[in-house]
Amino acid sequence: MNYFSSNFTLGILGGGQLGKMLLYETRKYDIATAVIDPNPEAPSSIACNTFEVGDLMDYDTVIQFGRKVDLLTFEIESVNVDALEQLEKEGKKVFPSSATLKNIQDKGIQKKFYNTHQIPTAPFEVFAHKSELLKAVEEQKWSFPFVWKSTTGGYDGKGVSLIKNQEQLNSLPDVACIAEAMIDFKNELAVIVARNPNGEVVTYPVVEMEFHPEANQVEYVICPARINDNVALKARNIAKKVSESFAHVGLLAVEMFQTKNDEILVNEVAPRPHNSGHYSIEASFTNQFEQHLRAILNLPLGNTESKVAGIMVNLVGDENYQGQVVYKNIEKIMQMPGVIPHIYGKKETRPFRKMGHVTITHKDINEARKVAEKVKNEIKVISQQNE
Amino acid sequence: MNYFSSNFTLGILGGGQLGKMLLYETRKYDIATAVIDPNPEAPSSIACNTFEVGDLMDYDTVIQFGRKVDLLTFEIESVNVDALEQLEKEGKKVFPSSATLKNIQDKGIQKKFYNTHQIPTAPFEVFAHKSELLKAVEEQKWSFPFVWKSTTGGYDGKGVSLIKNQEQLNSLPDVACIAEAMIDFKNELAVIVARNPNGEVVTYPVVEMEFHPEANQVEYVICPARINDNVALKARNIAKKVSESFAHVGLLAVEMFQTKNDEILVNEVAPRPHNSGHYSIEASFTNQFEQHLRAILNLPLGNTESKVAGIMVNLVGDENYQGQVVYKNIEKIMQMPGVIPHIYGKKETRPFRKMGHVTITHKDINEARKVAEKVKNEIKVISQQNE
Repeated sequence: MNYFSSNFTLGILGGGQLGKMLLYETRKYDIATAVIDPNPEAPSSIACNTFEVGDLMDYDTVIQFGRKVDLLTFEIESVNVDALEQLEKEGKKVFPSSATLKNIQDKGIQKKFYNTHQIPTAPFEVFAHKSELLKAVEEQKWSFPFVWKSTTGGYDGKGVSLIKNQEQLNSLPDVACIAEAMIDFKNELAVIVARNPNGEVVTYPVVEMEFHPEANQVEYVICPARINDNVALKARNIAKKVSESFAHVGLLAVEMFQTKNDEILVNEVAPRPHNSGHYSIEASFTNQFEQHLRAILNLPLGNTESKVAGIMVNLVGDENYQGQVVYKNIEKIMQMPGVIPHIYGKKETRPFRKMGHVTITHKDINEARKVAEKVKNEIKVISQQNE
Repeated sequence: MNYFSSNFTLGILGGGQLGKMLLYETRKYDIATAVIDPNPEAPSSIACNTFEVGDLMDYDTVIQFGRKVDLLTFEIESVNVDALEQLEKEGKKVFPSSATLKNIQDKGIQKKFYNTHQIPTAPFEVFAHKSELLKAVEEQKWSFPFVWKSTTGGYDGKGVSLIKNQEQLNSLPDVACIAEAMIDFKNELAVIVARNPNGEVVTYPVVEMEFHPEANQVEYVICPARINDNVALKARNIAKKVSESFAHVGLLAVEMFQTKNDEILVNEVAPRPHNSGHYSIEASFTNQFEQHLRAILNLPLGNTESKVAGIMVNLVGDENYQGQVVYKNIEKIMQMPGVIPHIYGKKETRPFRKMGHVTITHKDINEARKVAEKVKNEIKVISQQNE
C-alpha cells in the first residue's frame, strides 16, 4: 500500500507530548491523522486533521474511534486493550497489537513473560493482593529493602516504591503488585528498538541515564552511553530479543540495568516512542517518531545511528510552583551552542510535571555534557504567580 | 517578552510548503499561529491554530489579518506591502519589514540597491516598458545572449529567460523588466543569513547547486559547497553585508554566482526560508525554520554549522503527468541510508510542480552524493491515471 498517495488515515490514541511529536512526522509524510484524548486542551489537539475528546479506557469510545481510521496506534499504554482486540477481529490494523500490549500492560504478566522467554530480569514475585505480600514478608520470603510495583496504572515513577521497613509496607495500597529484588546497578540504560510487520528490526545505540548524585533523579539521558562496546552490544542484542519475543510492531523502549558485574537485566518496556529517545530528534539519522511511523506503516526502517552526540534534559515543573507556566531563563539557554528547547504546550505547571525537554548536541560528547550542565543550572519551570 | 509563557500569536502570510515547515517549529516552541492563504487546501491549513482563506495581495485582507496577530511574517514575497507598512504605522511588528520587502519585491529596485551599497552583482539595466528594451537592443546597448527578468511576479524560474535572438525578444510580454549580462559562472552558490532585531547576524555554510550536465536544471543542493575556503568565506561575508544593508530581520537566502575568476556576484535574494536551506532540517545544528523563528522573535540565534553533510533533491512533478499524485518508488529510496522524504501535501501533480524534497545526510559528503544520485534515479512524481 502506498500511504503517500492515498486517503489513508492514522488514528492515534492519546494526545500528549509523545503524540504531538509524532504528529510533526505525520506532517512530513503528509499522512492524515485522527487523535483522541480525554483532555480537550491536549498538546496534540492541533496539528492533526481531526481531534476528539474521549476516555481511552472506555471500550465503546475506542471501538467507535478505531472504526473511523485505517490503522490504529497509541502514545500511552493505558488504553482499552479489549477494544483493540475486537478491532483486530474486525480486520483493523492495530500496531503495536493487542496481544503485545496485553503482555506489557500488566507488570506481573510482563515479568513472567521475561522468565518464559529467557530474558534476564531481576528476581520477582507476583501477588494478587496486599495481604499475600504481607504474608510473604512475615514468612521471610522477602526482606527489606525490596522494590514494590503495582501491576497496573504505573506511569512516570508512580506505582513504584522502594520498601525499606514495615511501616512503608503497611502504608501500601491494596492492589495486585510485584515484589522485586533491588539491583545494585552500575548504570541504568535504555535501548530503543523498532520492528515492522515484515519482521525487519533495528536497534538504536544504548543511552545512559545519569542520576543526580544526591537526589536520585535522572538528570541527563546521554547518547551514546559511556560504557564499553561489549556491554553495549549485549544490551542491544537483549533489546532486540525482547522486541522479537513480544512480536512487537512499532517502537519499543527497553529499560535495563547494568549490574556491577556487567550483567544486563531488563527492567521494563514501553511499547511506544519514549523519553529516552527524545535525543534522537536532533542527534539521529532517523528520529524515533519517524521510525515509529516507518515501523507501523511497514515501510523500510531508517538508519538508527547518530550524527552527533546527544543529551536530553527534561523540563519538569519546579516543586515549589503551580499555575500558569513560565520557562525562566529560556533565552539564556538558547544562547548556548547546539541547545534546542521543546515545549510541550501544557499551560499549567505542577511540581515534577513534564513540561518539555531540551536537547544538547555536539560532535564531542564531553562538550555536550558540559553544556547540558549549564542548561540544567539555568532553566527553571515556574509559574507566573510565584515569580 | 517571553514568547514561551504568553498568549502571543504569530501571523503567517502564505500557507505553502515553507509555511508548513515553519509550523513544525512553532509547535516545538508552542507558539500559537494564524495562517492565511488563498488556497483552502494549502499545506499549512492544519497544524496552525487558525486558518483563513484570503488574497495576500489584497490590502484590506492583509490589514484585517494583521490586526488580529501580535507579530506578522510571510513565507512568500507576493504580499501587499502597503498593508504591511500601514500595520507597522499602527505599531504592529512585521518581520521582515515592509521597507526591506520593498527593496526586494521589485527586481529593478533590488538590483539598484546592490549598486548603491557596493554589493557585487552582474551588470544590468532597468526598462519600464518592453519598447525601451527593444530600442536598447536596436541601438546595440544590449546584444544577444542576455538574461531577461520581469521586475515583479517572478517565482521558481518564472519571469526569467535567456534571450538568444530577436524572435525570443519579440515574444516577451510587455512588462517592466531588466536586462542582465549573462555570467559565465563556475558555480551557483547560496548562503542563508539570519538576523534579529538586536542586529545579531549569523551565516550558514555555503551551499552549491549542482546542475544536470545536459538539462541545465538544478539537480542537487549540496552543503557544504565543494569550493575552496577563501571563496566560501568571501561568499559568507558578502551575504552578511547584503543582510545588514537591507536591515533585514528573519531569514534571507542570498543566491550568488562564483565566476571563472572566483568573483562572487549576488544574483538575487529571498527574504524567507528557502529551498536552498531545506538540507538544514536534517544536517544543521539549527534548522532554517527554527532560525527564522528565533530571528523574528528576537531570540538568540542558533548554531548554523552542520552536524553532517547534507544534500537536497527536489521532488518535482514529472513533465508527462498531471492529476492525483503518486510518489513512485518512495519505499525504495527510504531503504537507502540517511534518506528522509518530505511530502508537502499537494494533492495534484503538474509538470515541474514542487511536490516535496528528499534530504540525504551522511558523515562523508562523497557517500551522500552517491546516495543522492540513486535517489534521483529511482523516485518519480507521477499521477494515478497515467501510471
